[in-house]
Amino acid sequence: MAIKKIGKQTVKFQKPPVIIATGTTVGPKEGEGPLRDYFDTVLSDDLYGENSWELAESKMLRESVKIAIHKADKNITDMDYMFSGDLLNQLMSTSFAARDLGIPFFGLYGACSTMAESLSLGAMVLDGGYADYVVAVTSSHFSSAERQYRFPLEHGNQRPPTAQWTVTGSGAAVLGTNGRGPKITHVTTGKVIDLGIKDANNMGAAMAPAAVDTIINHFKDTGFAPDSYDLIVTGDLGVVGKEITEEMVLDKGYNIIKVYNDCGLLIFDNKVQDTHAGGSGCGCSASVFCGYIYKEMMKNKLNRVLLISTGALLSTTSSQQGQTIPGIAHAVTIVNKLEG
Amino acid sequence: MAIKKIGKQTVKFQKPPVIIATGTTVGPKEGEGPLRDYFDTVLSDDLYGENSWELAESKMLRESVKIAIHKADKNITDMDYMFSGDLLNQLMSTSFAARDLGIPFFGLYGACSTMAESLSLGAMVLDGGYADYVVAVTSSHFSSAERQYRFPLEHGNQRPPTAQWTVTGSGAAVLGTNGRGPKITHVTTGKVIDLGIKDANNMGAAMAPAAVDTIINHFKDTGFAPDSYDLIVTGDLGVVGKEITEEMVLDKGYNIIKVYNDCGLLIFDNKVQDTHAGGSGCGCSASVFCGYIYKEMMKNKLNRVLLISTGALLSTTSSQQGQTIPGIAHAVTIVNKLEG
Repeated sequence: MAIKKIGKQTVKFQKPPVIIATGTTVGPKEGEGPLRDYFDTVLSDDLYGENSWELAESKMLRESVKIAIHKADKNITDMDYMFSGDLLNQLMSTSFAARDLGIPFFGLYGACSTMAESLSLGAMVLDGGYADYVVAVTSSHFSSAERQYRFPLEHGNQRPPTAQWTVTGSGAAVLGTNGRGPKITHVTTGKVIDLGIKDANNMGAAMAPAAVDTIINHFKDTGFAPDSYDLIVTGDLGVVGKEITEEMVLDKGYNIIKVYNDCGLLIFDNKVQDTHAGGSGCGCSASVFCGYIYKEMMKNKLNRVLLISTGALLSTTSSQQGQTIPGIAHAVTIVNKLEG
Repeated sequence: MAIKKIGKQTVKFQKPPVIIATGTTVGPKEGEGPLRDYFDTVLSDDLYGENSWELAESKMLRESVKIAIHKADKNITDMDYMFSGDLLNQLMSTSFAARDLGIPFFGLYGACSTMAESLSLGAMVLDGGYADYVVAVTSSHFSSAERQYRFPLEHGNQRPPTAQWTVTGSGAAVLGTNGRGPKITHVTTGKVIDLGIKDANNMGAAMAPAAVDTIINHFKDTGFAPDSYDLIVTGDLGVVGKEITEEMVLDKGYNIIKVYNDCGLLIFDNKVQDTHAGGSGCGCSASVFCGYIYKEMMKNKLNRVLLISTGALLSTTSSQQGQTIPGIAHAVTIVNKLEG
């Protein structure tokens, strides 16, 4: 059996890669939310001086990378690889940012699970001895996502209560083999799970079974329990998906309720900000992790975190063809101070 | 410096991962081309018994994986990871196949460069000690790609001579840490390169500079020369891109002409099959490599091959917004019999 694999889906690093620095850029609405003080850049205009929302999103991703590299006290040319993806067709945000940055580039797509996917692969490539530094980054943008996945904004479409609000945000993390900062100790890679949800306005319910599968397999593979963690945080299941996850995980014999939260619920104040079931998008777990969670870890307020970014693998074509929505979730264990 | 890195963009494996088996499925037109005898399954109908081309493409990908795993004398549950992507928005082909297969899944997007991207990451994850077996696979489908990127087929659009024909095909490779078969010895990961081409009907010209950048950096990093290889083969540059690549590489001091070919030119007989500048799509380098090249290597007709899959990172949105087409190319050195 592979030397660094434990159980069916989990890898344990012998020399855990370090998250040396992070950078975040978010939109105006996210800047009005409860996490406002944790973000590096809050835009006053979601066009960010560009001619389209797509180019604005790409600029957010690029600038978040630059912030993270600057804080890591490194140069762009020090980065061996960039692991990155976004929600736009053909990764338009990421591809154009990767062009401007010039870092050897692996394009990823895992819908909203992409942040954990990028951290997982980045950590493996570092620990495997193929790189000294990598950057893991994702983005999403409410306006570019709405018009691609749903309706033109001008249409003023009514949103059902189960709908989530795509976060305008980007989070980037510089990972290295050495340095100070929280470390990635384990990675549990998700399988695609599909229990038959077809409603593109209820992605939390579509993604929850994938989150549950990954969480349960993570516990089984590692021997960890809910109280092994100070925080277990899913990517962006929102109100609906979070409840389903709590219950399904409880059914399997693990009570995570005391330490469990969701990035989609942390980023907005749903009552005041009218974001219905909560935030979503690649940029949701990216900005919440790289902003709030990372900074709380650096302040020693959190020590052991399980980040499970969750993705709904739907496309407008699959929905129009009447297909269900497959989900996926990737989990990463991040520890600030390792024991012993 | 990272222990397995040589030069700026290249990794050299200490224990080269083995390509144990491959599986290929292609459409009727590909089955009429010069490589017909190298494919495992040739469809008589490009709907493959499904209700849409997208679902047919997904089935091709899934079945190619099953063929490769069967030939490797393994089970689906032996696969630690699936590295996969396709051209469809949100990887519809890959996501639905990954759901049916149930293998822990990393979704990738590199446009037509995805086959080399999946081989690169799969090889790193194996050599790094995180897996015993992985499957690397991509697909494309003429009919699903045409209507997504260009026009509905019913429109009967005229194609300019520089246009390429998206291959209906899928190629899957099972990689392992041990076993018999050609080995991946080096990986050179590409940067995104954009020299300003805007014509979506001339993707060969858009991708060629990326191929050139990766080839030159591969030679510089490894010390290899054109005559280190029996075959240097780009992903799908077609007639136009191949000529540009030959000239630009020659300008940099390397004459690859004697050993150089392109998967987009190998798969069709352009004169007879009216495919204009040649084949393209994720499934092009996937089916040509997993079919023709792999089998020629197993027959000892080729020993050292440099596969450079090339991707044009355009979307309909970026084109409509007047943006240029960034390109990327990833290179993988594959050797049948290692010296010494």
